[in-house]
Amino acid sequence: MKLATFSVAGPLGPTNRLGLLADSLEGPDTLIDLNAAYAQLIADRMSPERVGPMAAAVVPPDMVAFLGNGQVRAHVLDEICSAQEDLAQLDRNVMGQRLIYRVDEIQLLAPLACPSSLRDCSAFEKHIANCSGPRGVPQQWYRHPTYYKGNPHSVVGTGVPVRRPAGETRMDYELEFAVVIGVPGRDIPVADADRHIAGYTVFNDVSCRDLQLAEMKTFLGPAKGKDCDGSNVLGPYLVTPEDFDPTSANAMIARVDGVEWSRGTTDTSHYSVAEIISHISRDELLRAGDVIGVGTVGGGCGLELGRFPEMGQTVELEVEGLGTLRNRFVDNEAPIGEET
Amino acid sequence: MKLATFSVAGPLGPTNRLGLLADSLEGPDTLIDLNAAYAQLIADRMSPERVGPMAAAVVPPDMVAFLGNGQVRAHVLDEICSAQEDLAQLDRNVMGQRLIYRVDEIQLLAPLACPSSLRDCSAFEKHIANCSGPRGVPQQWYRHPTYYKGNPHSVVGTGVPVRRPAGETRMDYELEFAVVIGVPGRDIPVADADRHIAGYTVFNDVSCRDLQLAEMKTFLGPAKGKDCDGSNVLGPYLVTPEDFDPTSANAMIARVDGVEWSRGTTDTSHYSVAEIISHISRDELLRAGDVIGVGTVGGGCGLELGRFPEMGQTVELEVEGLGTLRNRFVDNEAPIGEET
Repeated sequence: MKLATFSVAGPLGPTNRLGLLADSLEGPDTLIDLNAAYAQLIADRMSPERVGPMAAAVVPPDMVAFLGNGQVRAHVLDEICSAQEDLAQLDRNVMGQRLIYRVDEIQLLAPLACPSSLRDCSAFEKHIANCSGPRGVPQQWYRHPTYYKGNPHSVVGTGVPVRRPAGETRMDYELEFAVVIGVPGRDIPVADADRHIAGYTVFNDVSCRDLQLAEMKTFLGPAKGKDCDGSNVLGPYLVTPEDFDPTSANAMIARVDGVEWSRGTTDTSHYSVAEIISHISRDELLRAGDVIGVGTVGGGCGLELGRFPEMGQTVELEVEGLGTLRNRFVDNEAPIGEET
Repeated sequence: MKLATFSVAGPLGPTNRLGLLADSLEGPDTLIDLNAAYAQLIADRMSPERVGPMAAAVVPPDMVAFLGNGQVRAHVLDEICSAQEDLAQLDRNVMGQRLIYRVDEIQLLAPLACPSSLRDCSAFEKHIANCSGPRGVPQQWYRHPTYYKGNPHSVVGTGVPVRRPAGETRMDYELEFAVVIGVPGRDIPVADADRHIAGYTVFNDVSCRDLQLAEMKTFLGPAKGKDCDGSNVLGPYLVTPEDFDPTSANAMIARVDGVEWSRGTTDTSHYSVAEIISHISRDELLRAGDVIGVGTVGGGCGLELGRFPEMGQTVELEVEGLGTLRNRFVDNEAPIGEET
């Protein structure tokens, strides 16, 4: 299943909704509005005045909250998935809400508009070797997954221009995929980690190298160099584990204005997603809605290549099975806005 | 003003409330329940059935949400502060809610139970010099405030035992104070930073040195070494700026089982709070409820002293004007619970 958070324009302004990408053999991609679909499915099970509040509790229009619904969420998704052909026949549900949207008529947002947390590992050996310089990969890197914490408030989705901070000369992409936690847990054994996974998404860990490499000289790791507003791009979908296996050789590709700059595969990670989850959850509760980047794939950023996207260029990150992020890099002074 | 988040026991279980520490020349410390007090003050201004919902919106029982109410929050606090003598005469408000609690009959929680973010600077030169070893303080440290991002979900308040992770041998305190953002802002000039400050609180940045010093060898900064559940202690109060000036020589004292280990003053920070806010807000929105630790005062942790608290000992951090945190360090296997 591919789940989305999307924005619908209306007379009261834009409204955020959750959607399920419909299975379709032909025609444009369409999203089933999860909340509206659930309301339709339960309409004959309760009093009419309870349908709206029940649908709002079970399928709230926020992915973090929806993920927090745990087993209820899994059951609802299965039910809607099974009923999607019937739902697609209807224009609106019993409450008069639209059930189906074409992807080209809405705005896809980051699947988690604001994750409950954002961590990012460095699990690909080639990347860390390329970035470590003559000193080589630290031995500690082989002992445990290495990670820093990002700014979950700076998350945006595909299509949103990424602004270069004033004074920065090396704004860079990082080609990654991320795992999203669905079931909370602490001290999770490696063998048990799979059941905590809600899904996967593409992650562009936009990095301002001037800022980042300067601040890392004080040994507290990256901060502002990776935290500026809009510099964590997630999406386009949250793909559930039955439809994505990171241990397969899924292609990871970065293109700048259509020209391929980076290519790798998801299975070249030194640490498995399960090992990463197990390590991070040690003595520390992981929550539904936590996002963990696995790390930049080897060769998956401009810093490794010795060149950086120019302002005005579009950076496209594709992970086979997860989809593609497309974000234009723009100057600080460029007007803020969204584009697709 | 000193603001608190506190927990009240009741037939439906514990309930979180916000309080204002009452001015009192004698007798035990008491808290005025802000929500109940506001309901009392507005009761003659609207229909009775609107008093509860209005009080819930204006004084929600969560400090981050309350801070987000901006100018409304400031006005409400002034009004309750002025009316506190009258309110103290009443046992209950018009809705039957208690107005006044003695501090010794409730549980003080962290003033922000879960900050919208947690950052921690390293702004005291003596601390960074003590911790830098023979290589000395990095030049970059003098260019901008240095900081890392903590785990806001691991915040606890005074009185909560802090558990030592299994295998850790050097769980340490860090004697700090933190600033809390009250008014959102981006690219905040130093001269304008004061108006973004909601207040200050004591911060024990509990640090597991085995974990931290190992993971910092990979250059991504501290993560698990400072993120374990319960390892960020904030409180006991959020003290508003008219009652605390960090540029005065407020004493900062750490005691272990009553014995003084560390002493410094708040005014020895190399960077001002305004400079810190200005730097962090560059190209990045600060939000109401963001917490920023200023850093460990010189000599303010066991790492600098070459000794660490033992399990079972109580670590007490006092900052003159802000109050005292008291937390017992306990083994991983110790029963979880709260104590005062």
